[in-house]
Amino acid sequence: MEPSIFGIDYEISAINNNLSKQKNFYKTFKKTGIKETYKSPTNLSVIDLALKVCKRNLFEIKKCDTIIFVTQTPKYLLPSCSCIIQSELNLKEDIFVFDINMGCSGFIHGLSVACSLIKSNSSKNIALICADTYSHYFSKSNKNKFLFSDAASLTIIKKRKKKGIGPFLFGTDGSNYDKIIISKNKKNKLEFNMSGSDVYLFTLDKIPNLVDKYLKLINKNKKDFFIFHQASSLILESLRDKIKINKDKFIIDLKYGNTTSSSIPIALKRAIKSKKIKKGERVILCGFGVGLAWGITSMVV
Amino acid sequence: MEPSIFGIDYEISAINNNLSKQKNFYKTFKKTGIKETYKSPTNLSVIDLALKVCKRNLFEIKKCDTIIFVTQTPKYLLPSCSCIIQSELNLKEDIFVFDINMGCSGFIHGLSVACSLIKSNSSKNIALICADTYSHYFSKSNKNKFLFSDAASLTIIKKRKKKGIGPFLFGTDGSNYDKIIISKNKKNKLEFNMSGSDVYLFTLDKIPNLVDKYLKLINKNKKDFFIFHQASSLILESLRDKIKINKDKFIIDLKYGNTTSSSIPIALKRAIKSKKIKKGERVILCGFGVGLAWGITSMVV
Repeated sequence: MEPSIFGIDYEISAINNNLSKQKNFYKTFKKTGIKETYKSPTNLSVIDLALKVCKRNLFEIKKCDTIIFVTQTPKYLLPSCSCIIQSELNLKEDIFVFDINMGCSGFIHGLSVACSLIKSNSSKNIALICADTYSHYFSKSNKNKFLFSDAASLTIIKKRKKKGIGPFLFGTDGSNYDKIIISKNKKNKLEFNMSGSDVYLFTLDKIPNLVDKYLKLINKNKKDFFIFHQASSLILESLRDKIKINKDKFIIDLKYGNTTSSSIPIALKRAIKSKKIKKGERVILCGFGVGLAWGITSMVV
Repeated sequence: MEPSIFGIDYEISAINNNLSKQKNFYKTFKKTGIKETYKSPTNLSVIDLALKVCKRNLFEIKKCDTIIFVTQTPKYLLPSCSCIIQSELNLKEDIFVFDINMGCSGFIHGLSVACSLIKSNSSKNIALICADTYSHYFSKSNKNKFLFSDAASLTIIKKRKKKGIGPFLFGTDGSNYDKIIISKNKKNKLEFNMSGSDVYLFTLDKIPNLVDKYLKLINKNKKDFFIFHQASSLILESLRDKIKINKDKFIIDLKYGNTTSSSIPIALKRAIKSKKIKKGERVILCGFGVGLAWGITSMVV
């Protein structure tokens, strides 16, 4: 009996940016692979987004003794989003809840903590919620609106009679902390900024070595499936070519844009649903970005 | 071999509010038990505070494979404080770091996650940093400056040949989420607010039952030591009287004011240093507050 993913669901924000109407669409699309992004109205928070997906899965969430809420755009600095989720879903009071602040690798970070809580018998069933509303920190001229979408995902993790998740490897290079950041702009407003070229170079530098190290650790070659953080087609294709992963085994799913910590669970869910990845097949999951931080793990679907 | 606390250190912010010079000092002091609070200059963040205590303990931190940074007043929404700590301390890159957003019970929440990571063999040595600068969210008239101090604590957790930490019990009542909150004030500035009377009633309602349930779970009576979150003398004395804990066994240490998630490790360190609690004695640790959330555990010193 090992911790295993029982189910995934997600919610994409309602307001659609059809990018094909934008100037220079084709030039941008060639780099990003993204036709549409989605944003949340400014009065709707990550909690509202998360509640939509949670309410559809209330029967399973009610069985959870632990809620982990991964976000970097919380409704309040304090209290935690997970505490408000407890109340809004009428969950029992004797529940273990906390928020983890981590970005594009946040699903891997959260999954690792969830697996450890289950393995150590601290938790039985865990709801891992990832949700971000980066768009709330975009000024009108912020080009990141062509890349990022607001979304929430819910992953239920419990002990099951099947091969578990893991092992995990993680890393951090905080010297590049300012390459993806929310900080005050000239108008003294909080704004999201990313140095795309630096993040591209960082990713191409760190992730191929990480994947090689991980494959050695689990004694596997490149025949398994790979789902990386769905950052952009340029980053994904460059990584795929550098690591030399077969196109058929490498998932690129940018239908909803870059949904930060939700991008891996959304791509995984859609790949299973479309039968691209079938039951019993191994998939290697790798997140990277804000921090700069990265994490890798694998699981059998 | 069980996860155990190897060492604790802390840093109190530099700017001292000598409350005895304030109007109505004695009236306030009777409720709070706090003579002095400490605040951080606005240009010094939780990261700066944490770095001070971390740099004093660099030899131990360099041995850690995991950094957990508990804060509700991070320097940035993104990236996480823990990523910047990795770089500022020149720690190795293959390290697992993340921030947990939790308040006055945050030490117990963080300790639980740390113990699970060690028990499940995901981590070996963990640096659990708790740090907050609530004072950065006080307007001039905010009365909470008589209560809260900015501080950071560092707790090193590793496997040792002694009795471990735990079990843990947790709870959340998110319906009272707005009783301790940072939200926008009338001037559209983020401000910390607490409804003291509501928090007092909540604490007196939840914590005695929690302690009784916990003592039954670990099959102990009230002969052990108790260190609760050092909220105020009114809350602590009321809890002590309601639970019927002997004065000698119940630590009240408000020398530095209410230091939020650092209050338990600071009180524990000081009680051990002053030999109030001696080696081999059991201490029950209980945090409560923001969320509203609570957590309890125990350990042998």
